[in-house]
Amino acid sequence: MVKVQMGPGTSIYPMPTLLVGANVDGKPNFMTVAWGNIANAEPPMAAVAIRVKRYTRIGIEQNKTFSVNIPSADLVKEADYCGIVSGAKADKVQACHFTVFYGKLGTAPMIEQCPINLECSVLHSLELGSHFLYIGRVEEVHVSSDYLTEGSIDLDKVKPLAFMAEPSQQYHTMGELQGKAFRIGLEIKGGK
Amino acid sequence: MVKVQMGPGTSIYPMPTLLVGANVDGKPNFMTVAWGNIANAEPPMAAVAIRVKRYTRIGIEQNKTFSVNIPSADLVKEADYCGIVSGAKADKVQACHFTVFYGKLGTAPMIEQCPINLECSVLHSLELGSHFLYIGRVEEVHVSSDYLTEGSIDLDKVKPLAFMAEPSQQYHTMGELQGKAFRIGLEIKGGK
Repeated sequence: MVKVQMGPGTSIYPMPTLLVGANVDGKPNFMTVAWGNIANAEPPMAAVAIRVKRYTRIGIEQNKTFSVNIPSADLVKEADYCGIVSGAKADKVQACHFTVFYGKLGTAPMIEQCPINLECSVLHSLELGSHFLYIGRVEEVHVSSDYLTEGSIDLDKVKPLAFMAEPSQQYHTMGELQGKAFRIGLEIKGGK
Repeated sequence: MVKVQMGPGTSIYPMPTLLVGANVDGKPNFMTVAWGNIANAEPPMAAVAIRVKRYTRIGIEQNKTFSVNIPSADLVKEADYCGIVSGAKADKVQACHFTVFYGKLGTAPMIEQCPINLECSVLHSLELGSHFLYIGRVEEVHVSSDYLTEGSIDLDKVKPLAFMAEPSQQYHTMGELQGKAFRIGLEIKGGK
C-alpha cells in the first residue's frame, strides 16, 4: 500500500476526553484535555499535557496538585464547554452546574457528576514547547457508586468519550466489541 | 451521589490500542501499548509508557528511536497477540505477517498494514517505577493512502481500537457520535 508522508503531527487515536481540575487562587477550575493517559502502574501515575498559556496551569503550579475527571457521554456539552472557555473569563463550575468535592490532597478539585475522578500530586513537570507535561502520582481514585458493578468500575455504565480530531473534531462513545484482550490474539500461531 | 474510594489506580478511559515498534539488535519488534498519547503540539511529541522488563525497551534504548503504529479494527488479533507474546521468544513480525518499512530515522520499524505510523526520536526518558515514560519527537507521520479523504486522515476509515480494562479487558471501535467539538459546548451560557 502507498504511504503518504503527512509531516510531523499529533495523530494518535483514540484520545480520551478528560476534565483536568486545579484550584486557581483557591477557586476550582476545569479544562478539557485530550492529551492525557496513565504513565506508570506501580505506583499509579497519570500524565497530562497542558498548553503553556492555559489558566488551569496556574493552579497546577500553585498547588502541585491536579485532578483528572472522566465525563460520561451525558456531560458532552459540559466537557466541550470547558475546552472552549477560559477560567480567566468565566466561572465554569457555575456555568456547568458542577458540584465540586475534594479528597485527601485538599487542593485538587473534582467534579461529582463525573463517574471517575483521579486526584494527583505533581511529581514531574516537563516544559516541552507549546505544552507542559505534568506527571502526577494518583493518590486516590473516586468512583460514583452508580457506575460500579459488583465493586468494579463498569465502563458500559461510565460511557467515556473519545475525542476524534481528523478530519473533523468530534466526540464519540465506544462502539462495537471487537474482541477480548489477552485472548483473541491467541488465535495467532507460529513465530516461536 | 456517593463516591467510593478505590485506592490509587490507573483508571483513565478510553485508552488507545497502539503498537510500539523498535529494532532490537537490528531486528524489528512490536509491542501493544495502551498507555500512550501526544505530549506536545509544537513540535509534535508522543509519550509511551513501557514496562521496565519489556523486550521492546532494549531496542528503544539501543537506537533512541521508536514508532507508534495505530492498528485498524481488522488487526485486532494481531494487536492483541503483540501484547501477549514477548519478542524475546517469538518473531512477531513473521507470526502476524507484518510488512515492515522504515522512514527517515532508519531505525524505527513501522507496520505497513497499520493505517497510521508515527516515527519518533527519543527526547526524554523518565524511569517512573514499573515503567519508563519515553517522550519522542514525532519526526514524520505516515498514512496509508486508502485511509485518507481529500488528503486528510479519515478516522471513520481508520477504525482505531480503544482498550477498555474494567471490569473486563476488551477492544472496542468508536461508536455513536455525541457531538461536534468546539460547537456543542456553545449551548452552555452564563458564568461570564
